[in-house]
Amino acid sequence: MFHHLHHWLIGNPLPTKMLHGERLDRVRALAALSPDALSSIAYANQEIYLGLVVAGSAGLALSLPIAGAIGVLLLILTLSYSQTIQAYPRGGGSYTVASENLGKWPGLIAAAALLIDYVLTAAVSLTAGVAALASAFPDLWPYRVEVALVLLFVITVTNLRGLREAGTLISIPVYSFVGAYLVMIGVGIIKALVDGLGSVDEANIASHATESITLFLVLHTFSSGCTALTGVEAISNGVGIFKPPETRHARQVMVVMAAVMGLLLFGTIALTQFFGVTAHENETILSALTREIFGRTVPYYVVSLSTLAILVVAANTSFVGFPGVSSLIAQDGYMPRQLTSLGDRLVFSNGIFSLTACVAALIIIFGGDSHALIPLFAVGVFLAFTLSQTGMVVHWMRVRGPHWHLKAAINGLGAITTAVTLVVVAASKFLDGAWIIMLLIPMVVYFFHKVHEHYQEIRPQLSLEGVPYPPPPVLPLRVVVPVSGMHRGTLRAIQFAQSISSEVTAVYIELDETRTEKFKADFEKWSGHINLVIIPSPYRSILGPLLHFLEAFDREQGDRQPAVLVLPEFIPGSWWQHLLHNQTAWLIKLAVIYQRRRHGGGRIVVDVPFHLRG
Amino acid sequence: MFHHLHHWLIGNPLPTKMLHGERLDRVRALAALSPDALSSIAYANQEIYLGLVVAGSAGLALSLPIAGAIGVLLLILTLSYSQTIQAYPRGGGSYTVASENLGKWPGLIAAAALLIDYVLTAAVSLTAGVAALASAFPDLWPYRVEVALVLLFVITVTNLRGLREAGTLISIPVYSFVGAYLVMIGVGIIKALVDGLGSVDEANIASHATESITLFLVLHTFSSGCTALTGVEAISNGVGIFKPPETRHARQVMVVMAAVMGLLLFGTIALTQFFGVTAHENETILSALTREIFGRTVPYYVVSLSTLAILVVAANTSFVGFPGVSSLIAQDGYMPRQLTSLGDRLVFSNGIFSLTACVAALIIIFGGDSHALIPLFAVGVFLAFTLSQTGMVVHWMRVRGPHWHLKAAINGLGAITTAVTLVVVAASKFLDGAWIIMLLIPMVVYFFHKVHEHYQEIRPQLSLEGVPYPPPPVLPLRVVVPVSGMHRGTLRAIQFAQSISSEVTAVYIELDETRTEKFKADFEKWSGHINLVIIPSPYRSILGPLLHFLEAFDREQGDRQPAVLVLPEFIPGSWWQHLLHNQTAWLIKLAVIYQRRRHGGGRIVVDVPFHLRG
Repeated sequence: MFHHLHHWLIGNPLPTKMLHGERLDRVRALAALSPDALSSIAYANQEIYLGLVVAGSAGLALSLPIAGAIGVLLLILTLSYSQTIQAYPRGGGSYTVASENLGKWPGLIAAAALLIDYVLTAAVSLTAGVAALASAFPDLWPYRVEVALVLLFVITVTNLRGLREAGTLISIPVYSFVGAYLVMIGVGIIKALVDGLGSVDEANIASHATESITLFLVLHTFSSGCTALTGVEAISNGVGIFKPPETRHARQVMVVMAAVMGLLLFGTIALTQFFGVTAHENETILSALTREIFGRTVPYYVVSLSTLAILVVAANTSFVGFPGVSSLIAQDGYMPRQLTSLGDRLVFSNGIFSLTACVAALIIIFGGDSHALIPLFAVGVFLAFTLSQTGMVVHWMRVRGPHWHLKAAINGLGAITTAVTLVVVAASKFLDGAWIIMLLIPMVVYFFHKVHEHYQEIRPQLSLEGVPYPPPPVLPLRVVVPVSGMHRGTLRAIQFAQSISSEVTAVYIELDETRTEKFKADFEKWSGHINLVIIPSPYRSILGPLLHFLEAFDREQGDRQPAVLVLPEFIPGSWWQHLLHNQTAWLIKLAVIYQRRRHGGGRIVVDVPFHLRG
Repeated sequence: MFHHLHHWLIGNPLPTKMLHGERLDRVRALAALSPDALSSIAYANQEIYLGLVVAGSAGLALSLPIAGAIGVLLLILTLSYSQTIQAYPRGGGSYTVASENLGKWPGLIAAAALLIDYVLTAAVSLTAGVAALASAFPDLWPYRVEVALVLLFVITVTNLRGLREAGTLISIPVYSFVGAYLVMIGVGIIKALVDGLGSVDEANIASHATESITLFLVLHTFSSGCTALTGVEAISNGVGIFKPPETRHARQVMVVMAAVMGLLLFGTIALTQFFGVTAHENETILSALTREIFGRTVPYYVVSLSTLAILVVAANTSFVGFPGVSSLIAQDGYMPRQLTSLGDRLVFSNGIFSLTACVAALIIIFGGDSHALIPLFAVGVFLAFTLSQTGMVVHWMRVRGPHWHLKAAINGLGAITTAVTLVVVAASKFLDGAWIIMLLIPMVVYFFHKVHEHYQEIRPQLSLEGVPYPPPPVLPLRVVVPVSGMHRGTLRAIQFAQSISSEVTAVYIELDETRTEKFKADFEKWSGHINLVIIPSPYRSILGPLLHFLEAFDREQGDRQPAVLVLPEFIPGSWWQHLLHNQTAWLIKLAVIYQRRRHGGGRIVVDVPFHLRG
């Protein structure tokens, strides 16, 4: 049944030879790489509004200047990453750039920041998308967590199937979103020209004005707004998917994307301010703006649904990025190796499962509220930006080439600006949740380190170097068979033991004295020629006395390897019947195999199953 | 760490020879066997009040007649069970009496009813106890579920430790309860004589009167009140713990207990009615009565806490009864055998765990509200009563002896009365929850039947009868070793395989073609003399192709037993490092061992562990 469900949801397995990269033209590449960046204006807008509305209309008047500052940052990042595209035509993610140019530790820090960002991108995008949906359909507002989890499930399954024709498919929501917003901004401008400007509803806002404008408030809002910049680096990571000439195409697309981002961000914020739009408690500011422009008509729903769609697609990009970067890090030996293995459908299934688990946890813990998640977000993003840009400066100093001074200066400007922003974000958001990330990053880096250490340590232990050839022969074996009574199952185990060794010892743990005589007689009859040891167990434990006996038995043997344990085991016909038998064989196996041993050795355990009918 | 916690909570293991029954004198035996019966007046009182208050003061006026009817039932049950004590001096629980006299199926039905009753007794007693506590300390009212679960945890741990000196310890809460209630009733009577009788606050009650007095209402309330009779049978189950002459002592204690029960039930209900006491929403009627008599003074708190204490002790009796009866049923082969095994501290730990899980589930599902649980309760109790009494009638007809006609008549009266009550309870409470139990009992009986069937079926399969002596020798073995690469771990497995068989085949599942040549060269160098099979796996699955190969390999062998599988396995130094290795060996073991096989056979699997340092 599980098999059928799996087949239906995930599809047939795909052979390895189908693994190939599809190259995309510029239009589809923009759709594939920009959703994260474009969609982030949805929550950035919301954050700027929420950050300023507490200071009333005077606060809200600051939204344009703040958007201006973010625009300047966007310009600098676009220039900087255009250079990364040039320098790393096969794709230059922060992890690659930082570890190649700055060394192991900065690389690992960038890797930790990146992985955390992917998780947060997915969680924030999903919850912001659900907020857009629930603004249009207020009945859904109390079920935001559930709706977000359903979408997460759909995204997970889609990614486990593998997105073969992703480029074309993703174009629809991305261009719908861009189109819908451009139309809305256009209509908004016409409306502003025809009707004249509105003004903030002072009475409504005044009642909300609980704080005065302070430097902290401005920096805090700026930090929140910086989440608009998340995803800007995606194109430089994905240069490899462009049709040649990759570098030129990627840079062109980068510029177009930045222009669209800037236009949407400025346009929506300017219109919000011109019309003096404010939002209800259970509505996003973008929904309120759209309502102001279109009323609750079909275009309003088109904008809302296209916002949801692009945010879902943005969440989806994490499901490509996270497993990809994990696999890269795992190949370098800093994460568990399973993350490098391709699943049934040629996707890194383990990475997808890990991401889904983390995102679901965040959605549940933070109650499906993107506003609560945002303070965790920008720290990792700007840390990765800073490390990547610093890495680029070192890159130009190493590689040199024409105009390298200028190039290093541009990336240097990027590094300094993002570093300053990082400090502002970390300081102003520290108590809101940035501290979680500042604790988490070192923990993740430490985990990378321990994983690497483990893989380094086991290599020489497993190496055949130094092993004499031919390898020393295995010494004659001693075998121990624990028996709880004489029946076909135990008899089969004893016979197998005899077939592999001439030194077989049966062990009987005496739980109930009254049964011992009967057992002895049975044993005598069927296996009398074998050595039998009876161990009384006054505390009715089987495991303890058996392990004790095995240790004493091994000590007798001196240098020889530990005695082989042959375990008779029943296998009932159906699963529930396992509950009707003591799972002693299973417990013994666990205890014996995981018992600490000296390097290399370890007790060999043989399972002799006896299948029951019915 | 787990070991230390276990040690600290549960204590040192006790040797089997310490298992002995402590005999109790009559005073302590009453304390040990009566808490369930005595404490049930707490919730029965509450149920009668809640059943009648909906019909206003006219309804409440019916509480004494209803209590009278319950008193008559109590008298009949006392007479009937006195006879059970006489007939079964070693303890005659419903399961024993019904299965000995009526046969297998009635016995199993009684067993199912009994087990369900034990669970409900614990759940109802705990929640009623918490209600008494929360009536005295209203701040606890919203946390009734949590408080009940904490008490459940304490009871569980106490019982896992084993209650050695239970008789003496339990005397304190039981006699405090009896003493406190007798004093309260005495003071109440004096107060009534001095101050005159009160009257129901008509205005207050009238507003609650939402129903008129109907036959259904009366029967419904009677059914709820019948929960007062739960636990009456406990003394007849426990005749064995009395000091000799057991039968006489047990009958004396039975009469005393019934007299005390009757006195407390009548006394409290009569006073409630005389004073016209009504209860708040978040208070029990007994708490309201106590407040009426004592005010919120120290005696009030003494009564409340002694109510809590005896209810906790009553819940505790389930923790002795349930594991005991389970073990009895398991000995007869109708429940999993593990329930018969004594734990570290000479208690049936598995039974205790099962009970705790069921009780916790009930408390959580029913929101810690004893009133919601009550409708489930009486059906099982009266079913067990009826079966037990009917069994006694058959017993007397079988055994005869002096006055057997009279004895059969008394038990017959008991059987008829309890059967009629059963029908009334089942019908009037059907929709409130009794249907759950009426569904559950046949399901539990079916489970007993399937368990028994399984144990019956496997006996001949395991029996050595018909096996020729000496048993046929094991044929020469063929061995298969799956290898993922050449290293010390796989080399050790191959060497072991060679030491037990001359026909060893190594199998390599090819996941990545580019690595095959390197592997072949390594294998050639270290184990070139062994047969090597390379299986391409285009879908990157290891398990599928391996199982496929093994089946084909076995078919070649014809009649010989399936090839032995020797699995190399790494064992990392610490638990978290398991996450850093594919758990392939473990998956293969599971798949191979649990694969359906013909009876008896089954593939032998050998684990060759290789322990890693660090």
